Amino acid sequence: MNFISDNTAGASAPVMAALSAANDGAASAYGTDAWTARIEGLFADLFEHEVAVSLVTTGTAANSLALACLTRPWGAVLTHQESHVADDECGAPEFFSDGAKLVGLPGAGNKIAPEAVTLALSRLREGALHQVQPQALSITQATECGLIYTPAQVRALKEAATPRGLKLHMDGARFANALVRLGCTPAEITWKAGVDVLSFGGTKNGAWAAEAVVFFEPSLAAEMKWRRKRGGHTLSKGRLIGAQFEGLLADGHWLALARHANAMASRLAEAVVANGAARLAWPCEANAVFLILDAAAQDRLKAAGARYLAWSDTALSDGAPLAPGEVIGRFVMSFATREADVEGLIAVLNATPR
Amino acid sequence: MNFISDNTAGASAPVMAALSAANDGAASAYGTDAWTARIEGLFADLFEHEVAVSLVTTGTAANSLALACLTRPWGAVLTHQESHVADDECGAPEFFSDGAKLVGLPGAGNKIAPEAVTLALSRLREGALHQVQPQALSITQATECGLIYTPAQVRALKEAATPRGLKLHMDGARFANALVRLGCTPAEITWKAGVDVLSFGGTKNGAWAAEAVVFFEPSLAAEMKWRRKRGGHTLSKGRLIGAQFEGLLADGHWLALARHANAMASRLAEAVVANGAARLAWPCEANAVFLILDAAAQDRLKAAGARYLAWSDTALSDGAPLAPGEVIGRFVMSFATREADVEGLIAVLNATPR
Amino acid sequence: MNFISDNTAGASAPVMAALSAANDGAASAYGTDAWTARIEGLFADLFEHEVAVSLVTTGTAANSLALACLTRPWGAVLTHQESHVADDECGAPEFFSDGAKLVGLPGAGNKIAPEAVTLALSRLREGALHQVQPQALSITQATECGLIYTPAQVRALKEAATPRGLKLHMDGARFANALVRLGCTPAEITWKAGVDVLSFGGTKNGAWAAEAVVFFEPSLAAEMKWRRKRGGHTLSKGRLIGAQFEGLLADGHWLALARHANAMASRLAEAVVANGAARLAWPCEANAVFLILDAAAQDRLKAAGARYLAWSDTALSDGAPLAPGEVIGRFVMSFATREADVEGLIAVLNATPR
Amino acid sequence: MNFISDNTAGASAPVMAALSAANDGAASAYGTDAWTARIEGLFADLFEHEVAVSLVTTGTAANSLALACLTRPWGAVLTHQESHVADDECGAPEFFSDGAKLVGLPGAGNKIAPEAVTLALSRLREGALHQVQPQALSITQATECGLIYTPAQVRALKEAATPRGLKLHMDGARFANALVRLGCTPAEITWKAGVDVLSFGGTKNGAWAAEAVVFFEPSLAAEMKWRRKRGGHTLSKGRLIGAQFEGLLADGHWLALARHANAMASRLAEAVVANGAARLAWPCEANAVFLILDAAAQDRLKAAGARYLAWSDTALSDGAPLAPGEVIGRFVMSFATREADVEGLIAVLNATPR
Repeated sequence: MNFISDNTAGASAPVMAALSAANDGAASAYGTDAWTARIEGLFADLFEHEVAVSLVTTGTAANSLALACLTRPWGAVLTHQESHVADDECGAPEFFSDGAKLVGLPGAGNKIAPEAVTLALSRLREGALHQVQPQALSITQATECGLIYTPAQVRALKEAATPRGLKLHMDGARFANALVRLGCTPAEITWKAGVDVLSFGGTKNGAWAAEAVVFFEPSLAAEMKWRRKRGGHTLSKGRLIGAQFEGLLADGHWLALARHANAMASRLAEAVVANGAARLAWPCEANAVFLILDAAAQDRLKAAGARYLAWSDTALSDGAPLAPGEVIGRFVMSFATREADVEGLIAVLNATPR
Repeated sequence: MNFISDNTAGASAPVMAALSAANDGAASAYGTDAWTARIEGLFADLFEHEVAVSLVTTGTAANSLALACLTRPWGAVLTHQESHVADDECGAPEFFSDGAKLVGLPGAGNKIAPEAVTLALSRLREGALHQVQPQALSITQATECGLIYTPAQVRALKEAATPRGLKLHMDGARFANALVRLGCTPAEITWKAGVDVLSFGGTKNGAWAAEAVVFFEPSLAAEMKWRRKRGGHTLSKGRLIGAQFEGLLADGHWLALARHANAMASRLAEAVVANGAARLAWPCEANAVFLILDAAAQDRLKAAGARYLAWSDTALSDGAPLAPGEVIGRFVMSFATREADVEGLIAVLNATPR
Repeated sequence: MNFISDNTAGASAPVMAALSAANDGAASAYGTDAWTARIEGLFADLFEHEVAVSLVTTGTAANSLALACLTRPWGAVLTHQESHVADDECGAPEFFSDGAKLVGLPGAGNKIAPEAVTLALSRLREGALHQVQPQALSITQATECGLIYTPAQVRALKEAATPRGLKLHMDGARFANALVRLGCTPAEITWKAGVDVLSFGGTKNGAWAAEAVVFFEPSLAAEMKWRRKRGGHTLSKGRLIGAQFEGLLADGHWLALARHANAMASRLAEAVVANGAARLAWPCEANAVFLILDAAAQDRLKAAGARYLAWSDTALSDGAPLAPGEVIGRFVMSFATREADVEGLIAVLNATPR
Repeated sequence: MNFISDNTAGASAPVMAALSAANDGAASAYGTDAWTARIEGLFADLFEHEVAVSLVTTGTAANSLALACLTRPWGAVLTHQESHVADDECGAPEFFSDGAKLVGLPGAGNKIAPEAVTLALSRLREGALHQVQPQALSITQATECGLIYTPAQVRALKEAATPRGLKLHMDGARFANALVRLGCTPAEITWKAGVDVLSFGGTKNGAWAAEAVVFFEPSLAAEMKWRRKRGGHTLSKGRLIGAQFEGLLADGHWLALARHANAMASRLAEAVVANGAARLAWPCEANAVFLILDAAAQDRLKAAGARYLAWSDTALSDGAPLAPGEVIGRFVMSFATREADVEGLIAVLNATPR
């Protein structure tokens, strides 16, 4: 019962099959192969928009390269103070941007409100010599706490950022999970809502290592070619990533995978809440469940060998602190999570009714 | 008949099989998986020495991270003026090292002589405030012109570099090809000859995207963990690389692949030289053949649809310039090169005897 | 009546005289001159400790170079969220450190409490691959809000930082103002309290452009020579800075200048508070007075042509917010501030008794 | 008899007087003062062209900031392989440009020929993913070997660089010396000949520390404000540099200083050559004399306590190597060089007629 993260599984069978099928014959190197070329077309269809796409193997690279294209070294990226780019990439965005600053905004459940953007912008005065200049806003969809921005919320953030011309980046490491929950089109939650660049995550969704930086305004990608090469992220055998995406995107496979993960999460959340065995730190909107666990629950989980991550309580709403002895446990579901494991977990958690 | 490079094929069947076999069950993320752990052991056995190993997906990343660990931003890396790290990575070593300088040395066939190292060191005075400080020497095995350093030659280079304490890096994108030609042990051509860090290439050898930075002095790897993460090269599903290497290294598969590629190159070089259809720009010592092609030969190749790369003549020996109309054509053999294609190429080149 | 800052005056007469006196004969270049050499000795005497000293022309350079010597690119500098290094140097510390992160801590009056350090350290786990690693703590003496750390407070901060081995940097742009107020020795408020590196400010104190980075642990300065040169901060005519410091440090001139500035500030604060014309945002402990000005006071100042800076209210204590219409006005006194101007300012502020 | 460099003197009397005169009253900080503002006007008049000017204290900063404004991190600056920016600034241009590459071109006397530019451009293919992209050409006027580019030569270089759109930077650390020798207008040797950015040197000319980056195409300076601040080169008391330039530029003082230095150099060169005591390594065209000294001459100089710099022989013309025992001695004259010292030096050198 490993619920540590959605990156502990390998690749889905169709992804693996697509990779095997691609392993034949010669192909042009460094991303000039036919697989990579087809992916750009697939994304244009998917998003109903002209796009410039760069394929890389990690989310760290996707996010950092995307942000580097949006900011100058004296620029600032507004983002949640506990977002993945700010707090979990060991300064990679600073490295790729040659030292731009990530300015952390508060917000319950790691969601940023338009007011927080407006306040931050008021403190970083336009053109003020001594201050870094805000040039991008980065949001995570779904957030690190498993919450989802609606198209209207994304639009409101873009509007708050527009007076200063900030570009909007969406870290979509779990984009598929957010999308199937929202039930909207990929276009509606991205460029139609003001997103300029999307890190489209394939790895957590079911690939080995496949991430796409999708620019909806292709001119923003002008320097991407050089930045990706200098970062060592231009694979010589580009079809390795291209084929994974082909396997993922064919016949809505990626959405089916995300639906499964989300369903597993909902099942857990509902069963535990109904039973009263634990309460939710944040609503379960995607593929992760954040349970507030008392000492007894922690003990039962430990005894059962269930693995999960202890999570920070910083992003809890002000009015709902942890009680002494409580911790937040994060349980993440992936395309590979088995229903039996979830039911087993529920049984452990619900074992002692309150 | 595609002889453009040894990176146009996919992965060898055993590598693909190892990857498929690895696609089962949950594994710890970010390089803490069992596959990655085993690889470090395999390399220690292979090199008969304690090693610290970091796995990445590209040669650019392997070389750049290795050099960044050896130099400070005000340091200099001595290397051939047309080496891959100096001339073909779009400044990636400068990026990863925060601006260290690559100082280009001359040398026929892209091989560096100890005298060139000594001369360069004399010009960059120790401790001189205004000059970058040499901290590493990087050589390519086999060189970009297909030549090989013997253990004695590597040792002599290390000795030339030792008075100033330079660390020795070997770019082994084609390490396997060099090794099987030398007929020595991996240890003899690396740490026993003075190599401190090796970029061990798996991709051109038969993997999808698998490179290992092998530190023979583990303390030099102290910062690698952070540098790799910041560079976006710490895959969440680390077994993707680990499994490729497992497939490659099992039962000497990697050496068999390299022997095949070298044999194909030797066959071409010998047949063409025997016929007098073209002369060699440099001796054929690994898996690439550099033919000096006159206009007629170029025409025949074009008519036959043979694909190869036009190569710089800068590294020709001083006494052997190109005649008017001649170009250097690079023909590279890989694990996947078919004998029939080589014979076909020979037939085209030898069609009109001289 | 210009109270905008303490950097609007030129140099004090003795500094100017020292510079004139130095303008004779040939001197070795790039900081190897006799003036520069003498300064290191002066600082060793002043601080009763072995020191390594680097002279530069700006506080931005002094702070950024100092912090770059204390951190790696994946390191973090804990500092107040509105400190000068975090908020007023346009990302210079990030530039010089090749992308290290400045982590902002809260604190009224821009003073950091040990508890804030402890909390920040608990959130940035030691050795955690995904997080930047805290390596330095930077405090400002006096703070940007004019407050002063006592030796005991500095010591407590160092102790909070010690479990993780952080080095302690003190931004002493207004070190002299703090020192004369504290009435302790330079040693007591620096290395005896745990400070590893001090940016000793000369410019605001009465020089043209003279700052010294003073390392109390000389080994920390090992890379300074290269960093300063690469940053373009190694003047060829080093006596320009050396002579200014000689003028400043001779006969306690620097302390006299600071005493004057502090006295002017105290006079203003006391007169206005006694009259009730305005209240203080923070106690007046050095050479700046932060007045909470109502609309009427603002009008009177405007009419009188008094110049001051509007200041952020973020660092006010939680229990003392601004009333509607109120702003914080910063009035800074320098060595050159004339008593008549201060009395004039007081007259304007106290014109309408409340 | 110190002929080590032209940076061993202090400031000329008029520069010192201008600085003293500026030391009165309050001035706006960070380069918004009246002195700085006037300098931009003075340069516009001097160059008969609209200019954007940034004042800094060192040539390293001026050159590095200028080049950083002209290149991207994956860009290349073509320059002489022994130019000051390539060989004497400890990698500062790489630091300020976030890792751009300086590509060294050959050329006797450190002068670059158009053919060398054309050849270098042919090797760095436009748009080639794996190679850095040439974006600037940097020449030194006068060169480090004391040679001067004529307007026609500068124009020819710009024309060689134009097909790839390179910007032309002139390192004018000794611009005044070149100008008075050429006898042309400042405009003729800069923007009229194709120069886009000039590092206008004041320090060697007679200032303490005053350099100006002069952009003839002001749009190229768009990022200068941020780059200078982040580099710590925005002095708070900007009039320190402004006043020096005011002293230097008033009444052609700068040209008179340069004429003196050049005359001292000519006197030395002519007297020694006429006597046959030494031959010139390169013609004496500015304020430095490069003498090829045999062992006897070296002994006489040593005995007399004459100080000079031993110089590299790399930039000698191919046909004129040093004989065994010979070295190149560099003797540099400055505004402060006394005629008596030059005559004394001549006497030493000419003591033993050949």
